[in-house]
Amino acid sequence: MVLADAKAGARNEAGITAVLGILKQAFGERFQTGESFRAQHAHTTTYIPSQLPDGVVFAETREDVQTVVKACAEHKVPVIPFGTGSSLEGQVNAPQGGISIDFSRMSRILEVNAEDLDCTVEPGVTREQLNTYLRDTGLFFPIDPGANASIGGMASTRASGTNAVRYGTMKDNVLSVTVVTANGEEIRTARRAKKSSAGYDLTRLFVGAEGTLGVLTSITLRLQGIPQKIAGGACAFPDIKAACDAVIMTIQMGIPVARIELLDAMQMRACNRYSGLTYDEKPTLFLEFHGTDETVALQSAQFAEIAAECGGGEFLWTSNAEERNKLWKARHDAYWACRALAPELAALSTDVCVPISRLAECVAETQADIEAHGLLAPIVGHAGDGNFHVLVLFDDKTPEGIAVVEDFVARLNARALAMDGTCTGEHGIGQGKMAFLEQELGDAVDLMRQIKESLDPDAIFNPGKIFRRH
Amino acid sequence: MVLADAKAGARNEAGITAVLGILKQAFGERFQTGESFRAQHAHTTTYIPSQLPDGVVFAETREDVQTVVKACAEHKVPVIPFGTGSSLEGQVNAPQGGISIDFSRMSRILEVNAEDLDCTVEPGVTREQLNTYLRDTGLFFPIDPGANASIGGMASTRASGTNAVRYGTMKDNVLSVTVVTANGEEIRTARRAKKSSAGYDLTRLFVGAEGTLGVLTSITLRLQGIPQKIAGGACAFPDIKAACDAVIMTIQMGIPVARIELLDAMQMRACNRYSGLTYDEKPTLFLEFHGTDETVALQSAQFAEIAAECGGGEFLWTSNAEERNKLWKARHDAYWACRALAPELAALSTDVCVPISRLAECVAETQADIEAHGLLAPIVGHAGDGNFHVLVLFDDKTPEGIAVVEDFVARLNARALAMDGTCTGEHGIGQGKMAFLEQELGDAVDLMRQIKESLDPDAIFNPGKIFRRH
Repeated sequence: MVLADAKAGARNEAGITAVLGILKQAFGERFQTGESFRAQHAHTTTYIPSQLPDGVVFAETREDVQTVVKACAEHKVPVIPFGTGSSLEGQVNAPQGGISIDFSRMSRILEVNAEDLDCTVEPGVTREQLNTYLRDTGLFFPIDPGANASIGGMASTRASGTNAVRYGTMKDNVLSVTVVTANGEEIRTARRAKKSSAGYDLTRLFVGAEGTLGVLTSITLRLQGIPQKIAGGACAFPDIKAACDAVIMTIQMGIPVARIELLDAMQMRACNRYSGLTYDEKPTLFLEFHGTDETVALQSAQFAEIAAECGGGEFLWTSNAEERNKLWKARHDAYWACRALAPELAALSTDVCVPISRLAECVAETQADIEAHGLLAPIVGHAGDGNFHVLVLFDDKTPEGIAVVEDFVARLNARALAMDGTCTGEHGIGQGKMAFLEQELGDAVDLMRQIKESLDPDAIFNPGKIFRRH
Repeated sequence: MVLADAKAGARNEAGITAVLGILKQAFGERFQTGESFRAQHAHTTTYIPSQLPDGVVFAETREDVQTVVKACAEHKVPVIPFGTGSSLEGQVNAPQGGISIDFSRMSRILEVNAEDLDCTVEPGVTREQLNTYLRDTGLFFPIDPGANASIGGMASTRASGTNAVRYGTMKDNVLSVTVVTANGEEIRTARRAKKSSAGYDLTRLFVGAEGTLGVLTSITLRLQGIPQKIAGGACAFPDIKAACDAVIMTIQMGIPVARIELLDAMQMRACNRYSGLTYDEKPTLFLEFHGTDETVALQSAQFAEIAAECGGGEFLWTSNAEERNKLWKARHDAYWACRALAPELAALSTDVCVPISRLAECVAETQADIEAHGLLAPIVGHAGDGNFHVLVLFDDKTPEGIAVVEDFVARLNARALAMDGTCTGEHGIGQGKMAFLEQELGDAVDLMRQIKESLDPDAIFNPGKIFRRH
């Protein structure tokens, strides 16, 4: 199904030839058409086949972006924005060819307004770069999807990650964007006020649009004060249900956990093996609290009580950074520990998100499915949001190996949808989840199509993603 | 300018006649065309002239809404959703006539999922009704725009109010909506998962669309746990700047204030006069904290320190409900105290929102403007968001009186926009602020037009609001 989706769309050869000529002249060495450049700018994070763009522009200014969009609009050639390439559902592939805009040189931090807790950055700024830059101001940008992704890419996929439970997702943390639209002009979606009810929420329309409605040229973000104190800890539970009950109680009591992560027994086993650790090989919650000495101690004590009530083991926590990292080691190593289970296999990271009342059930059924099919597939969840990832290890060299993982993903999505959940909490649709989006939202996808057709009538912006055109 | 905007649009007499016949037959007594019904369903909250719909349907089910939309779509007749009529910018007026859908009988609470902290309600449910219903569950819906507005109306205008500083606005608290679209079918914008990155954010597109893209038939909301403890207090400051500095420090330190309201000296004077109180007639902050015994005490102490540092007076606070209401009396009475300054005059409530670093400057310049023009116009601000209201008392019986207030509003908006603010933090655009939206967002308004044209090609949904069609 995924493979079929990825094949959709026809190339406009004449238009592409014309645009290659225009861009060569306009950008010189900043426009590359060699295969290695093109391959680096296609999708590389899963088994979805790479589909190379025809050329890559290394944009340095918003005017560069406008030049590309105007040339591509005139000749009806696809434009695919590229941040760091860490998206997971084929978002940067070029199924109809076209021009990749690489944002690595548009990585300036344009403005920090410390009093207003906001900043404006170019799309190529990475979250680590931003947080390093901000450190002296006492502020930080909280969204942490794991990878050192670009802010433009994070906005475009509506990214979130471990601390969304406290700080929200990109939807909640983007105040405004500037965008080059289909006519090559740049618009700004909102002013810098913290809230507004002035017209349609264009900001939220571009956040999560995966580059299909226009190309972002700057993003204004909300920032947070660096907490005076960070405490962290871990606690094992007899089963998934007990761990999820503790999560639900924590959220319901309004304890402002900064992170509350669930690792299943297989993941804990993988971590012990990978790093020679001695964690209990049981479902385990990893927590982090942000606040002052007093509040993190209070919150940790409150959680310890909840954990005990739910049958959990001792909750070990600390606000010493080094000890905290030790307690959190399993979570930090989760990905590589998992890969080490079978280094010869490929890995697919997929995610769904369900109402938290259904999380235990969804995870348990998924584990049963994994066991029934003899898969190696540990589970790591952003439990406070009902969002979890399965890292499926599989043989990507054979059609049978791929069929196994595709069937698994289809069952996982059907299960999440049956629980009133979503087919993706934070990875986006890209090419990989188009069929599931239709299952999830039905006729609402037609509204998305209508919006796409009105804002991008020639379908130049990242075609072949999110949904097929009718 | 406002008057001119309100006059735009032509009536489709033939279509209206046809629809009146269809709806009479379909709804009988639940369809009213008498002038008193029609007048009650037109705009009544400011001097913007009332523009009556041709008939009012008292909808009881989503199928009723579909029946109205289908009839109106077939005959190209306007459909205007009506909640409680408390919107402030002419949102429920019918400049081209048409059919008002009254939601007062669609006021069922359809579902409460206590474990997931969410609920689903019909659009006519009011926030007080919802919170009364929820009380036994230990949950509440935090958004409080002052008026006992309907949830459908609050979603449609992206409402917020006093505790948005902690809990966000309707944008942050609507998980999903069902909507009847222009073809008369109902779609659902999202599942019940707490977060999703599945396609365009249709939920946020309908929140704040003021009924111009479709008619809401249900809204799924995020809920919060009722805090164990609520503390409140008040503190006077020598001037607006000092009060705003205290607000900025409070926000920057991450103190999770639930409300932080600024009343200017004229407002405090009005409150003293109205209720025989003895507050200092200085700019005053009213605060509320939500948490436990420990955390509200901690936060109150932290704020007291900040207030002292900024030159504020003593910060009196309490967690006793009766005493808290006494301390907050001025804030609660603000509107009526203000009206009592000149009972013979009309009142216009207008709002703007600026980055909080500019709030002191914006309020001070606005006060100077008020003084220079000899206006009676107290200011009340949701200071933590940089959002403030001016309640202008004026003579709405003469063109000169109206011109004075229109000129004032134009200057206020120009001032907020010059500070990178927005022309409305929470009232919406309606008919009153169309010109300012253009000033604020320029060509971005064309994108809104394109979206409107694609989703509502015959312009039946609440025409003449937010922007003019080209």
